[in-house]
Amino acid sequence: MTNTPDYRPMWTELGLDLDNHDALLDALGQLYSDTYLSQANRPEGMGYFDFVMGEVHGLRIKELVDARAQGKIVVGAFCVFVPEELVLAANGICVGLCAGADFGTEEAERYLPRNTCSLIKSFFGFALEKVCPYLQASDLVVGENTCDGKKKAYEIFQGMIPGQFMALDMPNTKSADGRAVLKKAYVELIEKLEELSGTTITVEALKDAIGVVNAKRRALHRLSALRQAVPAPISGLDALLANQVAFYDDPQRFTSSVETLCDELDRRVEQGEGVVPASTPRIVMSGCPMAVPNWKLPAIVEASGAVIVGEESCIGDRGQQNLVSDEGGTIDALIDNLVDRYFTIDCAVFTPNPDRAEHASAIADGARADGVIHYALQFCSPYQIEAPMLETAVERGGTPVLRIDTDYSAEDVEQLRTRVEAFVEQIGG
Amino acid sequence: MTNTPDYRPMWTELGLDLDNHDALLDALGQLYSDTYLSQANRPEGMGYFDFVMGEVHGLRIKELVDARAQGKIVVGAFCVFVPEELVLAANGICVGLCAGADFGTEEAERYLPRNTCSLIKSFFGFALEKVCPYLQASDLVVGENTCDGKKKAYEIFQGMIPGQFMALDMPNTKSADGRAVLKKAYVELIEKLEELSGTTITVEALKDAIGVVNAKRRALHRLSALRQAVPAPISGLDALLANQVAFYDDPQRFTSSVETLCDELDRRVEQGEGVVPASTPRIVMSGCPMAVPNWKLPAIVEASGAVIVGEESCIGDRGQQNLVSDEGGTIDALIDNLVDRYFTIDCAVFTPNPDRAEHASAIADGARADGVIHYALQFCSPYQIEAPMLETAVERGGTPVLRIDTDYSAEDVEQLRTRVEAFVEQIGG
Repeated sequence: MTNTPDYRPMWTELGLDLDNHDALLDALGQLYSDTYLSQANRPEGMGYFDFVMGEVHGLRIKELVDARAQGKIVVGAFCVFVPEELVLAANGICVGLCAGADFGTEEAERYLPRNTCSLIKSFFGFALEKVCPYLQASDLVVGENTCDGKKKAYEIFQGMIPGQFMALDMPNTKSADGRAVLKKAYVELIEKLEELSGTTITVEALKDAIGVVNAKRRALHRLSALRQAVPAPISGLDALLANQVAFYDDPQRFTSSVETLCDELDRRVEQGEGVVPASTPRIVMSGCPMAVPNWKLPAIVEASGAVIVGEESCIGDRGQQNLVSDEGGTIDALIDNLVDRYFTIDCAVFTPNPDRAEHASAIADGARADGVIHYALQFCSPYQIEAPMLETAVERGGTPVLRIDTDYSAEDVEQLRTRVEAFVEQIGG
Repeated sequence: MTNTPDYRPMWTELGLDLDNHDALLDALGQLYSDTYLSQANRPEGMGYFDFVMGEVHGLRIKELVDARAQGKIVVGAFCVFVPEELVLAANGICVGLCAGADFGTEEAERYLPRNTCSLIKSFFGFALEKVCPYLQASDLVVGENTCDGKKKAYEIFQGMIPGQFMALDMPNTKSADGRAVLKKAYVELIEKLEELSGTTITVEALKDAIGVVNAKRRALHRLSALRQAVPAPISGLDALLANQVAFYDDPQRFTSSVETLCDELDRRVEQGEGVVPASTPRIVMSGCPMAVPNWKLPAIVEASGAVIVGEESCIGDRGQQNLVSDEGGTIDALIDNLVDRYFTIDCAVFTPNPDRAEHASAIADGARADGVIHYALQFCSPYQIEAPMLETAVERGGTPVLRIDTDYSAEDVEQLRTRVEAFVEQIGG
């Protein structure tokens, strides 16, 4: 990061606490270097993602600031149920907000019960310590009524942020009436976006936006398919990073970078070239999303001699599966298309949610996985309670499952390593 | 209980585990005796409730068994969002299911994450240990999509019970679309009840049922109003018991017993006779429901020299507030009336939920409370996260708040006693 410009005036203007922010960036840089740059045999196409991560609080934030100066709005979100399509159609930029690091936890616990998951504590911590430039640059933060923790925590969180807040209502079931709830939420989001941006969302703009996001998803589907090759052409950490960057980056630039990476992986697959030997035990991860820089468990898995070949996760296949149809000549028809696609996301907050176990099994089968690791954040009741049901379904198909409950702290690293190594030995034997 | 008949053949027939059940009843009998019968100056009208509790797994269960033999259905529930009116109108009996004791916790934790609240672990424990005759006698158990824990736990629980199961869908907000979700859930419940009972719910039967449940609520409202007198004419433990028995007992017999109790309390109030001196510090409880035999915290509060004069709780004013209108000539109109009333329940699962803090403040003001104790079950995110917001609102009105997070175990009794005694001393000073 030696040649990067001085972003400190911009950070100050955004209201960041520079001391806290320096501490965060130093830790993040070290972690990235240790976790990512030390990997062997990386695809050249990952260079783009290394650059993006190096500039994650720099160039990308400058782009957001510049775009706002030109009249665009920035919308921050914490969940894959917030449709980027609508934000783009309103001349906006949609960004995922910081929620992946153990930072400001003590501060967060002044507002939240200790038995709150790390992800929620993290976004409180980032807001309270003033270290998330995405949050500071957001004109609007869109929360969503998914789990109890987020749903109720947003009631407090909305008083801590510089921009506006709106909660996207969501149903508990995928019934017809539940569908009406989600559709209404999207209609209300459109109203809010139009009000903030001074733009009226047209059919044409929404179709264009659907095309942009579909292209991004198609690129990620291609990446998911390529990872399934034996030997795996890319590490699980690198593939996860691409899925993480999908939430921050300019969508068109991102898509083209993923396609370039996939071209390279295509060649690797054709030549039978792997990032690891073909005999490496293959793991699929299933469970809670892993936001940047939550690489703890994947790093342990891959350091244990396995390779991660798929993610049944919001930051992964669950979040990116399926495309939105652009058929239809009215906004209403296109909103229905959006609801159709978003309603296929098999988040554990829905009841019942049998599709998720089927989806995890299908990914494991497609990727010829030797084992599935179910990853739940401590105190995340929806994923924790679903875990034994998913385990039963996946093991019925012949794939062993290891269940891990953890958080963002480093305290359990050695314990996790022991359990993961034993599992890798078991499935690799 | 010397003259009670031998219920063991009935319990065996219901599938109870007699050894486990003996252990439970012994513990419950001792706890009841220690907590309730040792109180001084109890109203004579509590004799009925002592009798009901003595026969809680005996005579009342025999009534259910006899009613089933005569063609009635028994419907079990865990939540005040399940309308007793609909069950009664379908020639059924609605009972609250066992969920208030630390029993079978170890068994429950084989199916549930440890970070699940005591209430949910309790109903799993009772089912797994086969000690809840209400559950065993239920033709149908109606769950509800309220909190994450219950919503997801029901997916597992439904496989553990002898009767049928249905989940009542619920919204996350009190919007028009949310209202449609609840109405649809009630329509589906009617269909299920009609199918099971072979009865068609008529307008007349539903109006009658609304009348029966309104009468029960009116009696409990009268009790709530009488408790507000200075000096308090009844202990908080006794008033809580009446609210708990409301979920088990025959509604008409219950109503008449509460009215008789209230007549006696009326006389006490007229004569200025209290169960404790007028100078006794007055506490309102606010938070999670306390199912039988969860008397731990109220017993500590009243043993600390305070008296509980109101409950902002599902087993208390939150669950019993407001009546259902019986205006309207169609089932559809009456369902709308039901939704109108049930939608006023200010459960913390809704977002936002400002009414609850107002309600707690109003109860505290009406009861001339010196302090409010917010009671949350450990791991109950909705109530835990709402606690600081409620605290701020209530303290703004001048009433101090003590926040307690606990569970059903006896481990923290001494610690709770210390905290409660300090609070009582503070507010009584």
